[in-house]
Amino acid sequence: MRYELYYWPSSQGRGEYVRLALEEAGAEYVDVARRRGGEDRMIRLMEGRAIKTPPFAPPYLRAGNLWIAQTANILLYLGGRHGLAPRDEGGRLWAHQLQLAIADLVHELHNTHHPISVNLNHVDQIPESRRFAADFTRHRIPKFLGYFERALQSNRAGRGEHLIGARTSYPDLSLFQTVAALRFGFPNAMRRIERECPRVAALHDRVAGRPRISAYLESERRLPFIADAGVFRHYGYLDAK
Amino acid sequence: MRYELYYWPSSQGRGEYVRLALEEAGAEYVDVARRRGGEDRMIRLMEGRAIKTPPFAPPYLRAGNLWIAQTANILLYLGGRHGLAPRDEGGRLWAHQLQLAIADLVHELHNTHHPISVNLNHVDQIPESRRFAADFTRHRIPKFLGYFERALQSNRAGRGEHLIGARTSYPDLSLFQTVAALRFGFPNAMRRIERECPRVAALHDRVAGRPRISAYLESERRLPFIADAGVFRHYGYLDAK
Repeated sequence: MRYELYYWPSSQGRGEYVRLALEEAGAEYVDVARRRGGEDRMIRLMEGRAIKTPPFAPPYLRAGNLWIAQTANILLYLGGRHGLAPRDEGGRLWAHQLQLAIADLVHELHNTHHPISVNLNHVDQIPESRRFAADFTRHRIPKFLGYFERALQSNRAGRGEHLIGARTSYPDLSLFQTVAALRFGFPNAMRRIERECPRVAALHDRVAGRPRISAYLESERRLPFIADAGVFRHYGYLDAK
Repeated sequence: MRYELYYWPSSQGRGEYVRLALEEAGAEYVDVARRRGGEDRMIRLMEGRAIKTPPFAPPYLRAGNLWIAQTANILLYLGGRHGLAPRDEGGRLWAHQLQLAIADLVHELHNTHHPISVNLNHVDQIPESRRFAADFTRHRIPKFLGYFERALQSNRAGRGEHLIGARTSYPDLSLFQTVAALRFGFPNAMRRIERECPRVAALHDRVAGRPRISAYLESERRLPFIADAGVFRHYGYLDAK
């Protein structure tokens, strides 16, 4: 089956979590909105009545007759189909629990530059962004990454290398992406924070070196981080000193 | 099996989504933190090493040997076990997709009173709350509830009465709770908005009248809404005029 991924074409954003799972799985997929006319098609489909399970927002995935939206939900599906999550119920729920914690972190990461509204530009909410980001870098990143550090540490089977069991699962890929985005957005803060969570930092580097992921990262399929667009941004004045 | 629910004892909050599913299912459960010493136990368990799949935050649920956290993840589990979600893969994913959209709405609802940080009191972020809430009531509630209205409308089998198929599923219960919370928090805004989404409003009232739910709502197990505490608050100055 050839999947169709629908996500905004100009930045990594939440679509990147889906791309990483598809790439690690070696799955065949089309990144629809990056093709000519694809973005219009994505919007038309989302607003129309053809999809019986319509998305609230991208990303969404077509998998045969299924149309699946919400990043974590797409990963729940792909994880089960492509061996990127444990097969047993407890393991599957644990993977999803970790993914939903990552989703919460990404929500806050997004709010560092849009704390007031997605309907305003970042420049119209800079004072609030400064306040939000100060707390985010000081308290929230350490709290979230500390949580994942403990998960890595307590997973004996993974020897500190995997969040779950002895294999790569979709939360590993998602944590890689999130650390990459945090390093891009908040390099000063992250230099300090990563000292306290060496396993999280090492997981990032190890996932980046996996054969399919490293080939993907080198390819044109991987969009670059963009300082002033999308979910994962960088404004120097929001970073720690 | 007797479930153990762990959530902050003094307000409905996100724990309420789990309670509603347990109540509709007629499941036996203990609301641990509302018992003597239970809140300490909840915090100790969360911070300790006894749970191999530790929660990032409440709510979390013990189901035999499983410890499950993240509201939507708990409902994914309970929905499957208690007939509160379709059995087929597409239906299960659709239910979860709707639940995750509700989770996004609840995240924003929370941010109306805490737009800058959970580490500050509401009174220390009032100007930002006013700005956030103005956009939330004007644009975001209508966008989210409009989405659920269309889902109700396009579900022929549910005759506008159910989000999915012809039966009550956990997203119905969660939408009920969210509408109740929005009515409590933003009565003026909701009076206007509900005119545009009559099916959502009717679903709220119908869920409230289901035998087990209505018995629950009358019982002492249902905590009241509290204006100045928890996720679901009411500050008159944040509501529409």
